[in-house]
Amino acid sequence: MFTLASDFGSPYPAAMRGVLLSETDGEPRLVDVAHDLPRQDVRAAAFWLRFVLPEFPPAVHLAVVDPGVGTDRDALVVRAGEHALVGPDNGSLLPPARALVAESASDTDGSAPAAGVDADVEVEAFAVDVESPASSTFHGRDVFAPTAAAVHDAGVADLRALDALTPTDDAVDLRLPGADVDDDRAAGEALVVDDFGNVVTNVPGSFLEGLVGTELLVETPHGSMRVPVVETFAGVDSGDPLVTVGSHGYVECDVNQGRGDDAFGLAPGDELAFSPQPE
Amino acid sequence: MFTLASDFGSPYPAAMRGVLLSETDGEPRLVDVAHDLPRQDVRAAAFWLRFVLPEFPPAVHLAVVDPGVGTDRDALVVRAGEHALVGPDNGSLLPPARALVAESASDTDGSAPAAGVDADVEVEAFAVDVESPASSTFHGRDVFAPTAAAVHDAGVADLRALDALTPTDDAVDLRLPGADVDDDRAAGEALVVDDFGNVVTNVPGSFLEGLVGTELLVETPHGSMRVPVVETFAGVDSGDPLVTVGSHGYVECDVNQGRGDDAFGLAPGDELAFSPQPE
Amino acid sequence: MFTLASDFGSPYPAAMRGVLLSETDGEPRLVDVAHDLPRQDVRAAAFWLRFVLPEFPPAVHLAVVDPGVGTDRDALVVRAGEHALVGPDNGSLLPPARALVAESASDTDGSAPAAGVDADVEVEAFAVDVESPASSTFHGRDVFAPTAAAVHDAGVADLRALDALTPTDDAVDLRLPGADVDDDRAAGEALVVDDFGNVVTNVPGSFLEGLVGTELLVETPHGSMRVPVVETFAGVDSGDPLVTVGSHGYVECDVNQGRGDDAFGLAPGDELAFSPQPE
Repeated sequence: MFTLASDFGSPYPAAMRGVLLSETDGEPRLVDVAHDLPRQDVRAAAFWLRFVLPEFPPAVHLAVVDPGVGTDRDALVVRAGEHALVGPDNGSLLPPARALVAESASDTDGSAPAAGVDADVEVEAFAVDVESPASSTFHGRDVFAPTAAAVHDAGVADLRALDALTPTDDAVDLRLPGADVDDDRAAGEALVVDDFGNVVTNVPGSFLEGLVGTELLVETPHGSMRVPVVETFAGVDSGDPLVTVGSHGYVECDVNQGRGDDAFGLAPGDELAFSPQPE
Repeated sequence: MFTLASDFGSPYPAAMRGVLLSETDGEPRLVDVAHDLPRQDVRAAAFWLRFVLPEFPPAVHLAVVDPGVGTDRDALVVRAGEHALVGPDNGSLLPPARALVAESASDTDGSAPAAGVDADVEVEAFAVDVESPASSTFHGRDVFAPTAAAVHDAGVADLRALDALTPTDDAVDLRLPGADVDDDRAAGEALVVDDFGNVVTNVPGSFLEGLVGTELLVETPHGSMRVPVVETFAGVDSGDPLVTVGSHGYVECDVNQGRGDDAFGLAPGDELAFSPQPE
Repeated sequence: MFTLASDFGSPYPAAMRGVLLSETDGEPRLVDVAHDLPRQDVRAAAFWLRFVLPEFPPAVHLAVVDPGVGTDRDALVVRAGEHALVGPDNGSLLPPARALVAESASDTDGSAPAAGVDADVEVEAFAVDVESPASSTFHGRDVFAPTAAAVHDAGVADLRALDALTPTDDAVDLRLPGADVDDDRAAGEALVVDDFGNVVTNVPGSFLEGLVGTELLVETPHGSMRVPVVETFAGVDSGDPLVTVGSHGYVECDVNQGRGDDAFGLAPGDELAFSPQPE
């Protein structure tokens, strides 16, 4: 099984689908993760892959968000337990790889990995010896998909048998920034904004324990506002802002049936802080 | 086989795909219906599911448009012949369930169910006994996909064997509003607007029988206009408005190579009326 | 295996998926090419299908960009080696059909067909005898998908056995316009603009041989500009314009991490010319 993720829009991902089907044995399943990941945003790619991939059974995950296409950045294969990830060596692959290992170790029931999953777990990285590709702008088709096909046919357990792969300790890593959390205040940042306009922060959901039903002071670059902490969107009126624990396990700044990014004035990378307020 | 439909945008549907693949036996096929259904619009979900699902062979249809996520609305499984639907108990599932039964009863050739399909047919509804989910905001991943996987593995004919399912007569129903039609006038409303800007009304296509080539008076909240009745878009010049029978079997207000919603000033829910005009 | 391409947006393609699955034997694989092809743009459809389809193993390619739906244009089946294409007879199918034959003849490694693939290769076209369809506006569901299913079950090698197909020499053809190229100047036009805003021209990439690192004079309807020729986007600073050979084998007018169509003021169909400049 393959999963496919990219920021390619359309119809470029279809070329990768064709290559995977042409160059593999059998008729492996192809499952799309998304092809509208935030364009050339390596950190967002790492976030979303880390969120989604642990839901899947063992697979080869082809994940191409690649602002450095055509530069001398390496192509990378990462083994994470029974999974493999294939894509550019720019930091986007290691966070989801660690989450895949942590997920299988925790033997959970299919729910998302908890915040904090970036604890040290073992993954194995390989640099790919790339033949000169047909195009210098479409490595998804010409480098990564053929590599993923080779990984699939060799089997994730036997990556060392592939001549084109060389074990490496120098893979580019990326750690999503941590938040400073104590009882009185959590200071962090906006990580990503989803299609709904929900602002996912890097503050662990555990910060909201015991606070549902109270108000939180939310400080953003544009000022501060008091916002109710609720368990579900329906806990406030339509159009009203709220703070809750999102499905990723992080604190989110949202609006019931509206856009949190607009209401809070937040974009990815913005700093923010939450403080519980006396009733 | 599963079909998947939601208003989740991207990349959330991939989490549901992963859960379905992780929690089922065999390697069931996944087929997307759409993940950009009109956001939190239960009526539009019912309309589109009713339009599309009858084209499919027997399947478990996971359909999540769920403005009430996190409230105490039930999770629902509906059996419709050899099909099952899984999603929130908000009315979105029963209209397509009835269409699936009507379709298989009429033994048609794969065309869409005729308007009026909401006639009384028998479907069987079950409330789902939901364990506390991992997230209160993403029941697609944590409640509905695991339920759909369980339904798939148990088999649609054996839903009563699933401990988590309890037959119910109280499922929320939703009847798409009917039109008032006589020979001189059809009064109804705009049901949905599609990606092309075509305005689908609830007036049955049969109202236009014998009227192709004539003009119709179209009354909307913004005034009235005379519009030609044609069999195909090409029956008027590019950019001109037209009235025709859409592929759903309903009267549509369209523009050839343009947007009907703009030209007619219509949005879902708007009232409208059609009257044949003397030549 | 089927591939599916259209300009239908969502959720109409799901109806075609359902028909293909309902009306074929076995459980054929469905792979999406794209459903957001430029709306009613036959030339863009031909371009993108020619780009993507040669990556695929033998398949039945259902491709519906059909501004003439409901007129008396024919439905067409084209056999291209072990592939078949099914869609409207408007010129969109023959260029990719020729590319599929050229690709298999060249026994390449999965890379895209080179520019100039429209050389004469043999393909076989059949007009489809269409029964009166259920709808006059949705032939994707009512005409082309059932035809594709019949082609699939009959087998591409045995199309002559299908009563509904009649060999034809009158299929509408479409030749993407050629460029006038000599050593000093290449005059051509913008063919398509992709999701990234990259402007694909019809000037073969070979025109840039030996010019990487130099500047090119680019003449457009809005004036002229000197632009560096680079091998990859990263060859210029973020936000700067560039000219390079795209993954289709044609010269592209792009911006590193920006939109080429905006920077060059180009839209599909615009004339343009490139001239090497003395250092």
